Amino acid sequence: MQTPTSIILDWGTSSLRAALVSTSGETLDSRETQSGGIQFVKDGAFENALMQVVGDWFSAHGPLPVFASGMITSRNGWVEVAYVDAPAGASELAAGARRQILENGAPITFLPGMRDPAAKPFPDVMRGEETQIIGCGTDRDRTLVLPGTHSKWARVEGGRITGFQTYATGEIFSLLTKHSFIAKAQEPQPGSEPVWSAFDRGAEFAASDNLAADAFFSAIFSARTGILAGELTPGDIMDYVSGLVIGSEFRQARAAGWLKTGDTVGIVGNNVLNIRYSRIAPLFGLAVEASPSDAAKRGVLMIAGQSAQV
Amino acid sequence: MQTPTSIILDWGTSSLRAALVSTSGETLDSRETQSGGIQFVKDGAFENALMQVVGDWFSAHGPLPVFASGMITSRNGWVEVAYVDAPAGASELAAGARRQILENGAPITFLPGMRDPAAKPFPDVMRGEETQIIGCGTDRDRTLVLPGTHSKWARVEGGRITGFQTYATGEIFSLLTKHSFIAKAQEPQPGSEPVWSAFDRGAEFAASDNLAADAFFSAIFSARTGILAGELTPGDIMDYVSGLVIGSEFRQARAAGWLKTGDTVGIVGNNVLNIRYSRIAPLFGLAVEASPSDAAKRGVLMIAGQSAQV
Repeated sequence: MQTPTSIILDWGTSSLRAALVSTSGETLDSRETQSGGIQFVKDGAFENALMQVVGDWFSAHGPLPVFASGMITSRNGWVEVAYVDAPAGASELAAGARRQILENGAPITFLPGMRDPAAKPFPDVMRGEETQIIGCGTDRDRTLVLPGTHSKWARVEGGRITGFQTYATGEIFSLLTKHSFIAKAQEPQPGSEPVWSAFDRGAEFAASDNLAADAFFSAIFSARTGILAGELTPGDIMDYVSGLVIGSEFRQARAAGWLKTGDTVGIVGNNVLNIRYSRIAPLFGLAVEASPSDAAKRGVLMIAGQSAQV
Repeated sequence: MQTPTSIILDWGTSSLRAALVSTSGETLDSRETQSGGIQFVKDGAFENALMQVVGDWFSAHGPLPVFASGMITSRNGWVEVAYVDAPAGASELAAGARRQILENGAPITFLPGMRDPAAKPFPDVMRGEETQIIGCGTDRDRTLVLPGTHSKWARVEGGRITGFQTYATGEIFSLLTKHSFIAKAQEPQPGSEPVWSAFDRGAEFAASDNLAADAFFSAIFSARTGILAGELTPGDIMDYVSGLVIGSEFRQARAAGWLKTGDTVGIVGNNVLNIRYSRIAPLFGLAVEASPSDAAKRGVLMIAGQSAQV
């Protein structure tokens, strides 16, 4: 077995993911807990929460250095780390990190989130996605999209993240399908396949030449009129709205200058959303580039490497 | 007192509004009940529900003719009346009405809703708004907006309604301010004034030259980043989001071809939304035209007048 050299934490609002890694970046062990999400930790007892999850790693391997990113570095987290302003790369992010020493003597480094001061109407922010972007490699210029509750479109140029924009796509999808009159959807059966025909129908309208597709508040009403017209069934709604909403994210990102026909876009993450985003990209004339599934870990190690040099 | 000659019903999902009117259209008496909304009427007992509200009018004045519009003519209502296709005016709507006789011998006429078969991706529909539009007068060509949970933009040409488009603006506002993480708002104090400075800030961004304003999924994230940046307070959010969402409706309606700088637009309705829509219109270079506050009643009488000639 390789020697463990650090512990990497992806510590968010709803869960804590920990990885025990070697110098070469190989994951030797991993843990994930929902109860460790920062919203569940009372009275700032973050160190206790951490020890419950990975205490035995310290017992076995000594006071390994820990690197933490995600909402754990926000105002509601353990240590608030100021955002680093774009443009920034691994070295600027490393310079913005904050270090503490745990009771067992291990150093824990909190990596900063990033802010785009040029965004309108107010500076945009992210915590965690910047680390994934770094982990995808910043050796050449390109555009990346990171699907999620609050998706990010980001631009890498000259080895740095030069700008990004948040799209609240996942949250809007959830609001519409859980709470709205027009698009409230049946829950899919567990294990059931997406209704791809319905997904494509929503996506294709969002990608169409029809100017009505620029009017999302109107386009979403089609979840109701499609039923009235007998063109959609209640079982279609979840995926029809998914296609329409994600397609509208691409359409809006195009209007805001993040993409144009013929571009190549990297889709970052490893969840089911990537399949949906990859399916829509060609409708907008985009080629899709794969990204490493362990981008977050790679990013932490790259920033940590810079940090060691600081 | 003038002689009552008809009873007009605006009968929707959540309420029933009834007016006792004279030949000249004057309202001699009126009633409104929440419990009469079609969602509260069990087992199709609509005639009972009607009699509870206006039975004494029949007792006093005999079997007056009744005219009903709104969701009472939908599949979930009393009598389903087929939509009349655009383009259509008062005479086409009259021809599409359905008549029944109540137990007391009074004729009740159910007015149809309207469908726009040219709308994409599916034909658009409305029930009740077409009557308000007719009531505003169709003697000259113009564009009207009817604010609401599902706002309508409509075009009147050559004496008829030639097309319309639904915007789910009010519903999206409600979802965002009640259920979302990014824009959940404090309830305003009863009787408190809107925070117009916050409303204007949201509206002005929606009307701005910034291309990011074309990306609503991103723009709405500003309800969070504005707080993070210290530019918005929690008490601002309700009205900031209102301005941003209604402003985005105008922006999207412009993209979809419903308005352009220099146009005059009629704003129809008489609720608090009209003040907000009227405040935003000038930001898009629009002049606002008042519309009669009793447009619904006027419309019913105009269609009823046509109906009498059929």
